[in-house]
Amino acid sequence: MNQNPLDRRALGLTLTRLANANVDQVLASEAQARARNGHAAYRIGVTGPPGAGKSSLVGRLAQIRAADRRLGVLAIDPSSPKSGGAILGDRIRMDDLENIDELYIRSFGSRSSSDGLTDNLPELIAAMDSFGFDEVMVETVGVGQAEYAVRPQVDTLVLVLLPDSGDVVQAMKAGIMEMADIFVVNKSDLGGARKMAADIKRIATLRGHAAAGWKQPVLLTSMDHPESIAELSSAIDRHRDFLAQSGMRDALLHERSRYRIRRLVERELVQVLQGLDQSFFEAPLMEQYRAVLAELGRRT
Amino acid sequence: MNQNPLDRRALGLTLTRLANANVDQVLASEAQARARNGHAAYRIGVTGPPGAGKSSLVGRLAQIRAADRRLGVLAIDPSSPKSGGAILGDRIRMDDLENIDELYIRSFGSRSSSDGLTDNLPELIAAMDSFGFDEVMVETVGVGQAEYAVRPQVDTLVLVLLPDSGDVVQAMKAGIMEMADIFVVNKSDLGGARKMAADIKRIATLRGHAAAGWKQPVLLTSMDHPESIAELSSAIDRHRDFLAQSGMRDALLHERSRYRIRRLVERELVQVLQGLDQSFFEAPLMEQYRAVLAELGRRT
Repeated sequence: MNQNPLDRRALGLTLTRLANANVDQVLASEAQARARNGHAAYRIGVTGPPGAGKSSLVGRLAQIRAADRRLGVLAIDPSSPKSGGAILGDRIRMDDLENIDELYIRSFGSRSSSDGLTDNLPELIAAMDSFGFDEVMVETVGVGQAEYAVRPQVDTLVLVLLPDSGDVVQAMKAGIMEMADIFVVNKSDLGGARKMAADIKRIATLRGHAAAGWKQPVLLTSMDHPESIAELSSAIDRHRDFLAQSGMRDALLHERSRYRIRRLVERELVQVLQGLDQSFFEAPLMEQYRAVLAELGRRT
Repeated sequence: MNQNPLDRRALGLTLTRLANANVDQVLASEAQARARNGHAAYRIGVTGPPGAGKSSLVGRLAQIRAADRRLGVLAIDPSSPKSGGAILGDRIRMDDLENIDELYIRSFGSRSSSDGLTDNLPELIAAMDSFGFDEVMVETVGVGQAEYAVRPQVDTLVLVLLPDSGDVVQAMKAGIMEMADIFVVNKSDLGGARKMAADIKRIATLRGHAAAGWKQPVLLTSMDHPESIAELSSAIDRHRDFLAQSGMRDALLHERSRYRIRRLVERELVQVLQGLDQSFFEAPLMEQYRAVLAELGRRT
C-alpha cells in the first residue's frame, strides 16, 4: 500500500479541473507527466443497466478491497447532456464509506459526451495513478455505448445484470457479452437468477473470449450474502493474475493509448466542424473532406 | 409522386455496395453527385427500445404513407459488432408490404459501428434521394447512442415507448426527451398508457424544444386501432410543415452536413491509429497528438 498519506483536497481539485478541461488543458496537464513516471493503478470497470444495483455492489466491493490497498471509485452518473445535471446520484448511499482512510469516492455527471461518460475519463483515471492509488473502480450505467467507451479504459470489466429482466438479450444485441471479463447476476434472491446464470454461461461459451484463455465466470451476488461479494472480489484478482501472466495486459494498454488519442483528436475535429459555414458544405464531398483533413493538419 | 418507375434491382445493388463501402469508396461514389443534383427525400426516424413494437408500427405507417408517395424504409437491425450478424430481423413481418409498387423496404445489420447504426447510413439515405424517393423512414433500436447518431440524419424523429416500462426514465437519462419531435406510447391497450402519456407531456413541457415553436405531441397508438396510426401520420405531416415554415430545416441540414464529414474523418482517424506501434505511445501526449494531426493533414 502507498505510504504517503492521500491528499484528498488536492485530488478533489485536480479531478474537478480535469473533468471540465478542454483539449489544450488536457494536453498541458501535469497529471500526464506524473502518471507516466509513476505506477499505474489496476482498473476495474463495473457496468450494467440502470437499477441493477451497481452502486451498492461497488460500495461493498470497495469496502473489501480497500482493506489492504488505496482504492479510488469514480462513479459516472447518468445525466441529460442538455441539462448537464445528474438525475440520479449515488453519493448518498456511498457516504458511509467515505471515512475509510484509503478509500476515495467521487461521482461525476456525464455532461456533454454522447456515450454516457465524461469527456475526460482517461485523464481522470491517470490523475488517480499520480495520487498513488493501487486500484481504481469505474462505475458506469447503461447497456450500450458506455461499455464501448469504458472497455479500453479498464483492465477488468464486470457486467452486472438482473435476473429475468431481458438484460441479457439487450446486452447480446449491444455486443457486450464479448466485452465483459466477469458476469454478475445481482439480486440473486429474485426468481430466475440461477437459470439466467446458466443462460449467460452458455452464451459466454459460444461467444466469449475463452479462446484467449480466460473463461468468463458467471457469479450470483446479493447484498444479503456478503460471501457472494467476496467471491466477486476473488474473481477480479484471478482475472488480474491472468492478464499479467498471459501478457494480454500489454495489448490492452496499447488499445488504451490509441483510444485516448482518438478521443482527443475527435474533440479537435468537432471544433473544426463547428467553425464551418453552411456554404462550405455545398462543395463536393471529396473537397469538403480534404479541406477538413488539411485544417486538422494545420492544428499541430 | 415520382414518374419514373423504381428500379428495385439497381437500388438493391447500390445499397449493398454502399453499406459495405470504405471511406474512399464513399467519396468516389456516384450517389453523392446525383443526390446533390436531385431533390432530397423527407426523412423520418422511428426509434425506441427493443420490444416497443416499432417494426409493426413502421409497417402500418408505411402502408398509409406509401399510398401517395414513393416511400423507402431502411430498418437497422441490432446486431453484435463482433459477430457481424443480425440477431433479430424484421424482414419476415414486413414481407407482406413488399408488393406495394412505391414502397421499398430493406434491413441492414449494424455491423462494426458502436452506435448501433451502419457506418454509412448518411450515404444509404443519399442513395434513396437519388432513386427519386419522396420519403425515407429509418427505423433504429435502442435508447441511447443510436438516437444521437440518427438525430442529425432525419427531419422528424419519432420516439416509440411502451407504457409502464421504465422507458421514460431511461430516455430522460440518455437525454433523448429533448431530441424527439413526436412521442408515441405504443401498445396503448396495456395498463398505464394514459398515465404515461401525461407524464411524458409534463416532462416534454419542461425540457422539450417548445421554445423553438414546436410542441412535441404525445400520441397513443395500437395496432388494433388503425386510426391511431393515421393520427401519427398526420402529426408527422404537421411537423414537416412546421420545419418548412419556421426555416428550422436549414439548421438541420447544416448539422447533417457536419455530421456526415465528421463520421468520415473519424473513420480515417481510426485507420491512422491502427497503423501505430505501441512505441509511438511512449512519447509525451502532446507529441503523439501533434503527430496524429499531422498524419491526417497528409492524407488529404
